[in-house]
Amino acid sequence: MITLGENQYGKSRVRVMKVERCGDCHKVFEWNVEVWLKGDFAHCFEDGDNSRILPTDTMKNTVYSLARASKAATIEEFATELVTYFISSQPQVDEAGVSIRATLWRHIEAGGQQHPTAFVQTGPAIDTVTVTYPRGDAVSVTSGFAGLAILKTSKSAFAGYIKDRLTTLRETHDRLLGTLATADWTYTAPELDFTSARVRITDTLLDTFARHDSLSVQQTLFAMGKAALEAVPEISEIRLEMPNKHCNLVDLSAFGQDNPNHIFVPTDEPHGSIEANLRRGD
Amino acid sequence: MITLGENQYGKSRVRVMKVERCGDCHKVFEWNVEVWLKGDFAHCFEDGDNSRILPTDTMKNTVYSLARASKAATIEEFATELVTYFISSQPQVDEAGVSIRATLWRHIEAGGQQHPTAFVQTGPAIDTVTVTYPRGDAVSVTSGFAGLAILKTSKSAFAGYIKDRLTTLRETHDRLLGTLATADWTYTAPELDFTSARVRITDTLLDTFARHDSLSVQQTLFAMGKAALEAVPEISEIRLEMPNKHCNLVDLSAFGQDNPNHIFVPTDEPHGSIEANLRRGD
Amino acid sequence: MITLGENQYGKSRVRVMKVERCGDCHKVFEWNVEVWLKGDFAHCFEDGDNSRILPTDTMKNTVYSLARASKAATIEEFATELVTYFISSQPQVDEAGVSIRATLWRHIEAGGQQHPTAFVQTGPAIDTVTVTYPRGDAVSVTSGFAGLAILKTSKSAFAGYIKDRLTTLRETHDRLLGTLATADWTYTAPELDFTSARVRITDTLLDTFARHDSLSVQQTLFAMGKAALEAVPEISEIRLEMPNKHCNLVDLSAFGQDNPNHIFVPTDEPHGSIEANLRRGD
Amino acid sequence: MITLGENQYGKSRVRVMKVERCGDCHKVFEWNVEVWLKGDFAHCFEDGDNSRILPTDTMKNTVYSLARASKAATIEEFATELVTYFISSQPQVDEAGVSIRATLWRHIEAGGQQHPTAFVQTGPAIDTVTVTYPRGDAVSVTSGFAGLAILKTSKSAFAGYIKDRLTTLRETHDRLLGTLATADWTYTAPELDFTSARVRITDTLLDTFARHDSLSVQQTLFAMGKAALEAVPEISEIRLEMPNKHCNLVDLSAFGQDNPNHIFVPTDEPHGSIEANLRRGD
Repeated sequence: MITLGENQYGKSRVRVMKVERCGDCHKVFEWNVEVWLKGDFAHCFEDGDNSRILPTDTMKNTVYSLARASKAATIEEFATELVTYFISSQPQVDEAGVSIRATLWRHIEAGGQQHPTAFVQTGPAIDTVTVTYPRGDAVSVTSGFAGLAILKTSKSAFAGYIKDRLTTLRETHDRLLGTLATADWTYTAPELDFTSARVRITDTLLDTFARHDSLSVQQTLFAMGKAALEAVPEISEIRLEMPNKHCNLVDLSAFGQDNPNHIFVPTDEPHGSIEANLRRGD
Repeated sequence: MITLGENQYGKSRVRVMKVERCGDCHKVFEWNVEVWLKGDFAHCFEDGDNSRILPTDTMKNTVYSLARASKAATIEEFATELVTYFISSQPQVDEAGVSIRATLWRHIEAGGQQHPTAFVQTGPAIDTVTVTYPRGDAVSVTSGFAGLAILKTSKSAFAGYIKDRLTTLRETHDRLLGTLATADWTYTAPELDFTSARVRITDTLLDTFARHDSLSVQQTLFAMGKAALEAVPEISEIRLEMPNKHCNLVDLSAFGQDNPNHIFVPTDEPHGSIEANLRRGD
Repeated sequence: MITLGENQYGKSRVRVMKVERCGDCHKVFEWNVEVWLKGDFAHCFEDGDNSRILPTDTMKNTVYSLARASKAATIEEFATELVTYFISSQPQVDEAGVSIRATLWRHIEAGGQQHPTAFVQTGPAIDTVTVTYPRGDAVSVTSGFAGLAILKTSKSAFAGYIKDRLTTLRETHDRLLGTLATADWTYTAPELDFTSARVRITDTLLDTFARHDSLSVQQTLFAMGKAALEAVPEISEIRLEMPNKHCNLVDLSAFGQDNPNHIFVPTDEPHGSIEANLRRGD
Repeated sequence: MITLGENQYGKSRVRVMKVERCGDCHKVFEWNVEVWLKGDFAHCFEDGDNSRILPTDTMKNTVYSLARASKAATIEEFATELVTYFISSQPQVDEAGVSIRATLWRHIEAGGQQHPTAFVQTGPAIDTVTVTYPRGDAVSVTSGFAGLAILKTSKSAFAGYIKDRLTTLRETHDRLLGTLATADWTYTAPELDFTSARVRITDTLLDTFARHDSLSVQQTLFAMGKAALEAVPEISEIRLEMPNKHCNLVDLSAFGQDNPNHIFVPTDEPHGSIEANLRRGD
């Protein structure tokens, strides 16, 4: 006999731009929303019975309609409104989830001041959130960012590692350390000042990355996560992904030139992949 | 106290092209390899102790060196060689994993026959495999494909779903159903004829997709997975992801034209997301 | 004084999928259309006078409406219909241009025969066309393809080039030659059997690429273009772009292994860029 | 007879990162360089004679070697050094060209001040330059930027355009105007303060975009280019590409909600394409 295992369905890449008009000054929110539902959908999959299916087109409409009515000022609040709506209106659903990726805009400086209705996108990093609501349980909020390109040009070493017959890497006490960091942290409660927490976490991660005397990407990653957990009591765990985007020192000796860490080739592939979770323990 | 949770590290996007030279006729394998290791790396993360760290650069070298020595004719065999190598040579490692994405090439037809040393890439779909080897346990092989764009222009309906105040979708008994399918299936044993199994599974999935009288993407996905499990006893489960890449019927009535399912706008966003696992049950 | 120079405006990425229903057997055309117009739009740019502006939204509607009415079986014919429509209906326009990129689909094999209404996308190469119509002049049709990944594993050398103090490349008489080819050829007349010509040109290019004893990418490119011009009298010129996607031989000597052209690292960057036009001369 | 027409060859995607070490404070330049050469390469293409070919691999080495020796503080200066090197060292070359795309980094704020050796990438916009040097003629420098996402949430109208039987667009006096702008301007001389000019041009473009009372994208584009030419006498012409990335107002009336320009769907396709050159005239 063949049975249905884990399954879910939903709508992805629902883009919405909300313009808040506070007098003459506008704010812009650009969100890319994903919605998914889990529950007992066996009859749908096995028999084509759609009577318990909320169409994904309706999920899209729900994002638009709730965005209009919402007072949410953060992606955490808007995602929470969405999962709460689906759990309360769809009795056939056991769990609702929403992820949002926010593209960020700031006011353009024009004539020495911020223009109230003109914006330039910042980046390349984006803000993220994933909120899940299992029926009968608490809402869980995990925020983060993605695509944060950061680079250290000093205080990065890598030595003392295993050498075997396939080792060609040389030990170094002064290399470039570049990464495209992704972070996700989970809050201890579903309601708090998400904006303040996000700022404190991001600042702590960047500050630690900048100051750390790095013996490996792993050690720097751990130091960053530890500092964030220590600085921000509102979070219970943090996960960091820090791919090692290698900058290879160019050998210029054939051209009669030295290269004391001046000229590098940045590469996208292959890259190291380092990821870890950190938690408050006992 | 702050402690290290789940963690892993490895090398991603290690590209390798292997040319097999059987007399005058060549074969080409193009693989994009990812390696990761899990184990007790707490001292590395917490203290910068690299003494148990196999550098990711050495992992890359290992891929190249083993590729040269290997007799593997499939990505499943080569990935198995790699995880076995890491588990047997690295006592500090508890689990090794390898994923390979294979770009596919076929001989160019020149003058009515296949040219032995000239190739054209096929696609856009690629073959995939993920092999994991937890020390002391069995090797697990999960094969699949990604990026398979398929389309039905008849025998696809969607009706009988929940309608609420946010519903605007109309029921249809004749729509286009297009998807960019990803599939992953797990074998019951680590050694078998992977090429034959892959062909039978892919053919069964395509055949079922083509013939199915679809009441929903969910139902078609289930029918496809069920047919594959029934046709190929070597697999124990299969997971399918079939995003609904909507083709929207264009309303031409303002121009005095009808549109009996002739002209559509294919879209990438938003899209439905449907995914499920199927298993042999009791 | 500041004046308006060259300018154009139009609509890009107008996607349309047309399903031709010939009894029970369907055909699928997937086109990505770009439209642009040139003319005397100085007042529009300088004064915001929109009275001579056909909105780009209307261009999009025109693509949909003409697709419904069209009998075109090729992108060349459909693009020609579009430019002709714009020139005849928009007296303020001096030149109309249309480019189409066609994603290709074939019938799925199911149960030993081609299923009439189920399709799988082929690729990764796509077919292209650019048609321009300067008012009062002839329609010009330039067809081609893009994204054709091809590879030679023998009969490719590169030697005898300039050596200077910055040269580190070694001469080779047996290397891999891989490229992602783009081709564009211009027809001598606006009406002919475009499908037949396209097949003959593409087959000739592939055949020549496969058989050529290559001394450089430049020489192979020229041989391919020359063969196409010789084989297909309907075209007056051809342009080829053949970036050299280097496959670097891996040095395995540090591991005690030889590597007689078996293991390569395919790379995307940096890459050679070779492009040229060929024409019938006097 | 078949003859070689326009042709060129070179190296693309040569990535280089240069770390300038001024005491304890570092600067980072990340450049993606493209080099191309034109000349009489007919024998190379036609006969496989490589004796006049400088290998593209050597071009790559040249970028690295010159980057080490260079004092250039701008992409304009470094590109000029490169074309000058190729023209003076390669007598067979008639014209050398170099394009550079610069990814931008700024110091991380840590503990209230800029950390001297830690950086975060800014973006998504990048700086660009193209320098060409036809032998015996002057070096021409065209600078610009690409990928600048900007948005106006007021002072944007579109009305008074042509209406025909295929028009469905409604006139509006208050819409969102979003674009991903590309700009390129040409300097009147090959040596000047490129950094200052770039800042003044970019600020003027942004300022004008923000303040302009827009009747069309065309009019805003012209106003921006005109203001830049007026503000910066060092440039002779400017070209702007401003695709209209439509933000579509969502119709919420079916849900009993109004939408006075609050909720939009940003889209990538289809998009308007508007581009023009502006020059100083007589």
